[in-house]
Amino acid sequence: MTETIELARKLIQIDSVTPDDKGCQDLIAYYLQSLGFKNEFMPFGEVSNLWSRLGENKPCLVFAGHTDVVPTGPESSWTHPPFAAHIDGDMLYGRGAADMKSSIACFMAACKRFLTNYPNPKGSIAFLITSDEEGPAVDGTVKVIEKLEEREEKFEYCLVGEPSSSKKLADSIKNGRRGSLSGALTVKGIQGHIAYPELADNPIHNLAPALEQLVQVQWDHGNEYFPPTSFQISNINGGTGATNVIPGEVTVLFNFRFSTEHTAESLQESVHAILDLYNIDYEIEWTLSGHPFITEADGDLIKAVNQSVKQRLGYEPKLSTGGGTSDGRFIAPTGAEVIELGPLNATIHKVDECVSVTDLNLLTDIYYDLLVDLIA
Amino acid sequence: MTETIELARKLIQIDSVTPDDKGCQDLIAYYLQSLGFKNEFMPFGEVSNLWSRLGENKPCLVFAGHTDVVPTGPESSWTHPPFAAHIDGDMLYGRGAADMKSSIACFMAACKRFLTNYPNPKGSIAFLITSDEEGPAVDGTVKVIEKLEEREEKFEYCLVGEPSSSKKLADSIKNGRRGSLSGALTVKGIQGHIAYPELADNPIHNLAPALEQLVQVQWDHGNEYFPPTSFQISNINGGTGATNVIPGEVTVLFNFRFSTEHTAESLQESVHAILDLYNIDYEIEWTLSGHPFITEADGDLIKAVNQSVKQRLGYEPKLSTGGGTSDGRFIAPTGAEVIELGPLNATIHKVDECVSVTDLNLLTDIYYDLLVDLIA
Repeated sequence: MTETIELARKLIQIDSVTPDDKGCQDLIAYYLQSLGFKNEFMPFGEVSNLWSRLGENKPCLVFAGHTDVVPTGPESSWTHPPFAAHIDGDMLYGRGAADMKSSIACFMAACKRFLTNYPNPKGSIAFLITSDEEGPAVDGTVKVIEKLEEREEKFEYCLVGEPSSSKKLADSIKNGRRGSLSGALTVKGIQGHIAYPELADNPIHNLAPALEQLVQVQWDHGNEYFPPTSFQISNINGGTGATNVIPGEVTVLFNFRFSTEHTAESLQESVHAILDLYNIDYEIEWTLSGHPFITEADGDLIKAVNQSVKQRLGYEPKLSTGGGTSDGRFIAPTGAEVIELGPLNATIHKVDECVSVTDLNLLTDIYYDLLVDLIA
Repeated sequence: MTETIELARKLIQIDSVTPDDKGCQDLIAYYLQSLGFKNEFMPFGEVSNLWSRLGENKPCLVFAGHTDVVPTGPESSWTHPPFAAHIDGDMLYGRGAADMKSSIACFMAACKRFLTNYPNPKGSIAFLITSDEEGPAVDGTVKVIEKLEEREEKFEYCLVGEPSSSKKLADSIKNGRRGSLSGALTVKGIQGHIAYPELADNPIHNLAPALEQLVQVQWDHGNEYFPPTSFQISNINGGTGATNVIPGEVTVLFNFRFSTEHTAESLQESVHAILDLYNIDYEIEWTLSGHPFITEADGDLIKAVNQSVKQRLGYEPKLSTGGGTSDGRFIAPTGAEVIELGPLNATIHKVDECVSVTDLNLLTDIYYDLLVDLIA
């Protein structure tokens, strides 16, 4: 059993459901300390965070990840107990096996090998580990980044170990994410009896033409890295339940996943412009979950990944900005090149989450190549 | 105290909340029996109904009404106990004072006076009294009419004693009602994660253009008797509550109040045509609460009312088809001339419901005039 698999099993055997780290970060810190890293724990609220760095020189490659896992659901549904880290054939089973304790183990093992072969690298290496990526994500990565920014601690590259692979290892890497902007729209009218519409003012009717326009708009056509901006309504609710009453208000919850062709501000302006066109009495509460970000394909980090994957696996990863949010959104504003590269995501958050042992050893090799390419 | 006021007080003192008649109809039947009427009780389910007729000749004038009342709400909010039938100055207070025990009393007293003055009328008189007008209205008037139709018992005129007056007695009579057609529309889509709209199919978005069209349509311009047909959405609900999930369906409850320019069928066809235009996956459950009906202004019944009101009060009633439904909708299909004429409706269903004693005595006079004009 390789160092990677031993480390991955130890981490999976800790039932660290968000936000309770339960000692995972102690285990990581102890291991890194023996390699010469300087550990700094940065707890916020219930969340454990670890910032561990080796060296102070440029460039710095940061590995970002999380020790928390989503709940298992009924354990009896699992073929192997979710915290047993059972290996069956080539597969390592357990909650967090793919998302994302194993990639932490890969980077730990890659560092050990790298520092054995290159004991005095020119650049530096760091780990940014949180226990709140699957939760509200307010006391985790975002807070660590704030602290680093405060003291002007910089890094050039960030590798987020999220399971980015789709059908085979490293077939896809995320080099950006769309922005996410949510709105809670309340349209007000005047409640009344349905037989006397002239005495009421139906907010659903007032909203209808604006709603039609909002769902028809082509917000942009995307660009080289991003699909077109998407507008989706998740909830609409109006009415008292009674069938003979015109309601006094209707609420609509909607969300934009937006490309770098837009900003949160430009989208907000567009929505207001449409609603104002129809003379609607309304209010919107806006929530910005993340600005869009992109890491250019011609940067050193993506070039290094491409080279390693091609050499080790014989193909080139596809760049993608699709899917949900990740902690990359908090790191990108620092100006670092940020990508996500990890194992297959087919079983994440599911019963019988698992990952290929062969893949983990290969992923360790790729992470090792990046260290050699960028830091040695 | 006149016979009318004594009868009204006796009826109001019975707390006959829908559908429990609590003996009101026994009281009415006993009184009518003494005038020579033949009583027929027609209970259906929990509902008490009374069909009481004097004579078999044409024409027959039916008085239609209900003994049930809506709940009082907190009795402590009332100035006088709601079933005390307290008289304060010119006002008779109590639940059912306006809607509509007093008008039953008016017609009873009018019949007694009429039969004293015209002991052998050429036509006949009947009472159609139910205890389920304020409730679901399925075991009341509609069932009595069915029974009469079955045995081919006919009548020419029907005076519904609902409180039709607005500012002063008999300033308005209802000579018809709009139809009421309701629809429960369910639009189906495919649920999915809001970050992957290409894997989902948002039913709110699919519905939006059709909804916009439905609220914009000018269904008709009404006619001599009816305001334009009105379409109103009472409820719209879609979404799981979660802000990151595209819902799998959205439901819309809507209602038409429609003129005789439309039929339920023509409206259903129009709605389907609009929805079909947008290729929406939907279902509609239709409920027809009542066809529209109209009693022409040049019929004998309205002419008789106009003449009496002008003579007694010095003005002409306005014809109206506005407002909610009444049991008139069940009676009109028989082909009878149907109108609603009763006291002021300002306080109906409210705390401190009340009616003017002077008005009730005048209403008795008007009802008497109708009997003389049409039946004597």
